[in-house]
Amino acid sequence: MDRRGFNRRMLAGGAMAATGVTSLSATAARAPEAVAAGDPPPRTAPAGDQVRHLRLYAEEMAGGGMGYGLEKGRATVPGPLIELVEGDTLHVEFENALDVPVSLHAHGVDYDTASDGTALNRSAVEPGGTRTYTWRTHAPGRRADGTWRPGSAGYWHYHDHVVGTEHGTGGIRKGLYGGVVVRRKGDVLPDRTFTVVFNDMTVNNRQGHQSPDFRATVGDRVEFLVITHGEYYHTFHIHGHRWADNRTGLLTGPDDPSRVIDTKITGPAESFGFQVLAGEHVGAGAWMYHCHVQSHSDMGMAGLFLVAKPDGTIPGYDPHDPHH
Amino acid sequence: MDRRGFNRRMLAGGAMAATGVTSLSATAARAPEAVAAGDPPPRTAPAGDQVRHLRLYAEEMAGGGMGYGLEKGRATVPGPLIELVEGDTLHVEFENALDVPVSLHAHGVDYDTASDGTALNRSAVEPGGTRTYTWRTHAPGRRADGTWRPGSAGYWHYHDHVVGTEHGTGGIRKGLYGGVVVRRKGDVLPDRTFTVVFNDMTVNNRQGHQSPDFRATVGDRVEFLVITHGEYYHTFHIHGHRWADNRTGLLTGPDDPSRVIDTKITGPAESFGFQVLAGEHVGAGAWMYHCHVQSHSDMGMAGLFLVAKPDGTIPGYDPHDPHH
Amino acid sequence: MDRRGFNRRMLAGGAMAATGVTSLSATAARAPEAVAAGDPPPRTAPAGDQVRHLRLYAEEMAGGGMGYGLEKGRATVPGPLIELVEGDTLHVEFENALDVPVSLHAHGVDYDTASDGTALNRSAVEPGGTRTYTWRTHAPGRRADGTWRPGSAGYWHYHDHVVGTEHGTGGIRKGLYGGVVVRRKGDVLPDRTFTVVFNDMTVNNRQGHQSPDFRATVGDRVEFLVITHGEYYHTFHIHGHRWADNRTGLLTGPDDPSRVIDTKITGPAESFGFQVLAGEHVGAGAWMYHCHVQSHSDMGMAGLFLVAKPDGTIPGYDPHDPHH
Repeated sequence: MDRRGFNRRMLAGGAMAATGVTSLSATAARAPEAVAAGDPPPRTAPAGDQVRHLRLYAEEMAGGGMGYGLEKGRATVPGPLIELVEGDTLHVEFENALDVPVSLHAHGVDYDTASDGTALNRSAVEPGGTRTYTWRTHAPGRRADGTWRPGSAGYWHYHDHVVGTEHGTGGIRKGLYGGVVVRRKGDVLPDRTFTVVFNDMTVNNRQGHQSPDFRATVGDRVEFLVITHGEYYHTFHIHGHRWADNRTGLLTGPDDPSRVIDTKITGPAESFGFQVLAGEHVGAGAWMYHCHVQSHSDMGMAGLFLVAKPDGTIPGYDPHDPHH
Repeated sequence: MDRRGFNRRMLAGGAMAATGVTSLSATAARAPEAVAAGDPPPRTAPAGDQVRHLRLYAEEMAGGGMGYGLEKGRATVPGPLIELVEGDTLHVEFENALDVPVSLHAHGVDYDTASDGTALNRSAVEPGGTRTYTWRTHAPGRRADGTWRPGSAGYWHYHDHVVGTEHGTGGIRKGLYGGVVVRRKGDVLPDRTFTVVFNDMTVNNRQGHQSPDFRATVGDRVEFLVITHGEYYHTFHIHGHRWADNRTGLLTGPDDPSRVIDTKITGPAESFGFQVLAGEHVGAGAWMYHCHVQSHSDMGMAGLFLVAKPDGTIPGYDPHDPHH
Repeated sequence: MDRRGFNRRMLAGGAMAATGVTSLSATAARAPEAVAAGDPPPRTAPAGDQVRHLRLYAEEMAGGGMGYGLEKGRATVPGPLIELVEGDTLHVEFENALDVPVSLHAHGVDYDTASDGTALNRSAVEPGGTRTYTWRTHAPGRRADGTWRPGSAGYWHYHDHVVGTEHGTGGIRKGLYGGVVVRRKGDVLPDRTFTVVFNDMTVNNRQGHQSPDFRATVGDRVEFLVITHGEYYHTFHIHGHRWADNRTGLLTGPDDPSRVIDTKITGPAESFGFQVLAGEHVGAGAWMYHCHVQSHSDMGMAGLFLVAKPDGTIPGYDPHDPHH
């Protein structure tokens, strides 16, 4: 299993900005122990309780898009993946490099109205301005009244809430969105995470038949974070792989009654995630993922999950084949 | 925590009709004990096993709408919330004050074909006519063959099934719908329940930017019952609050694998519910709820969950602000 | 309870072909013990570990449709139901009797790229050609690294992936689809299974008001397998019956937090299933099932679940009534 993906993740702050990585991992850097030979238990999320800082920019991109990035001139669509552990607090020092007001609205995390990212709560940012958005997270536990309080863990996301309309319809359409994963202490960590955003009729704003491909090696623990935006409902489907329709996408054990699925209906602002072992039970190959609404896949909402053998080859896969 | 909302709920029958309340609570009136200081356990649903009676009217409303009400001339959209406990039986003495046939069809509860509320089963009511619809409910338990029988508990609803078409398309469009909550003995009781119906492009049939606002005080245990009707799918989203995607919206404990969410796709005749502690982890404020399909929110499917401080103020909220 | 339905299911192979049954049951034939009087425990799925063979044909049907069948000239829409138990392997000897390339793509089961059924993986079949598709299944268990591996059990389906477009849009539209049920050892077996496919605006490709009716006797353990295909989202609803929104549709016991529902939103290539005891708590009658998107039911996506008394009568049901 290739766990090198993990080492490419870095702590937030200067090192990340310097190297241009596009992911803030609050978890990986705190689990540095070496992987032993054989089948060791997978690495798991440590306890969270850190106060973290991140700079984030909103800016225009070539071709008329808009994106979030960790450095000026390096915005991506989707924006950088932000990973936290329950208990962490994140301060996002946000700069608006666009020429219209923009904001940062998050799903799943805890925030005061000052970090709501809406015009309603006067928490957008004027062109050239900066604002610190604070996201808090919390572990589950018992309330004083004895009832059970859920934790923040989940597959979440962030997006603009003001460009174009009071609901950020224009900003989201142009690419102002990204993923957030909040882990629970003990959650299994993936080797890598792929963010798939069904935004109107595109995947990650790539129109037509240019949906992104994702690469892994057989046995990699691959995490998919699937987010929907825009106007339409979709059904996310992946060939040869399945997941549990619950919090983590992994069954908790033999008593977990969750449905195991390979297709899921989803609509704007929903998000879910899951981990698979690449090629488990099915082997290496070019495995399609696509929206299963027939006109959507026909119009190009389909890409490949390319699972290579340990020697790097992908059986039956010819990148020059017109089907690929 | 403000539990006064509860005291406004009353037993079905004369008292309710006399006071014009629009909720039949089969639960609150049976849990009258005082709330002690501090953090006492929340009140829970008692055992159900009562036979209850309710008068219900269908009538025209100002502006061309139709509604259900507990008294003539007092119909509301949504119609009165009906709460039961598993084991209860409810007889609804229903009068049709419209000039077209109308019916009452319920989801989730047990009924013979005579209470199906369909033309198919000849259980609609002619103009000026009356009919008693009987809904039964049952607790979960083991069947004689050893398998597990689910109970009736859930967030359900009722609606017309005959106006306009054999599926009640015209009646539902005009407002003939309401919520039903069936509780299980031991279920945590809310301080108040808000019914949100996404009916075509409206919330509770309020078109344009007139979706209802809902008010609570920090710490109130607020229940949302979300129902969809009509033609379109929607994604219900609320800012600053989350819930578990299971029967009650509350996690049963640390082993509950349910996803915690703040956005959920939903389509016609689906219903779900959940409880939140108003402002928990996020504080008082004007928190938006809206359909997250971008064109739907832009067209006005958005309202406010107004969470006040104990002194009644709502930080940052100005009802005269054009954003509000 | 009528368990005779079960005896009509047969082993795959010659006997099935000879009698024209349209279901491959890998389970029933291995649980032949007689049903005792009283309320015996329901029959359950045996351990799976068999290698099975099935011949399957794709061919044109009268009226321009296409279908899968176990014998030439006997294709049906939906195609034959295929039942397996976790651990089974199925070899489908597939013959293309159409005049265009066609394929067989399955959801939920394990297959190499050679059995993917896509143009991408060169696993379609030319007109007149044959190909063996191999589907494997597996039980849940612990991986070597200690994590929990889900099993194959679920309500799944198969369909063409190449007619018309690279996603099989034309083949699916014309009827090239069918159901797959993978059971877990110990899963409760139904008396009969009904496959309901919402394909565009049809049920099982029957347009207008010709949706199929399904017949049972009070107390029968009836299984519904609900599949969606095509372009639109739908909400499956059935009157008088409910199910758990989990893997089996049956609660695992009192601690199962799953929502009990009678309406579920679903989109293309999703599938789910559940068992009900016909008429439990509600009695015999003509119970509607329909898509609850109002225009869809009005256009005819509605049929009947006809639950007879033990004497064969259905109270209130007159097949000559225009409402029926």
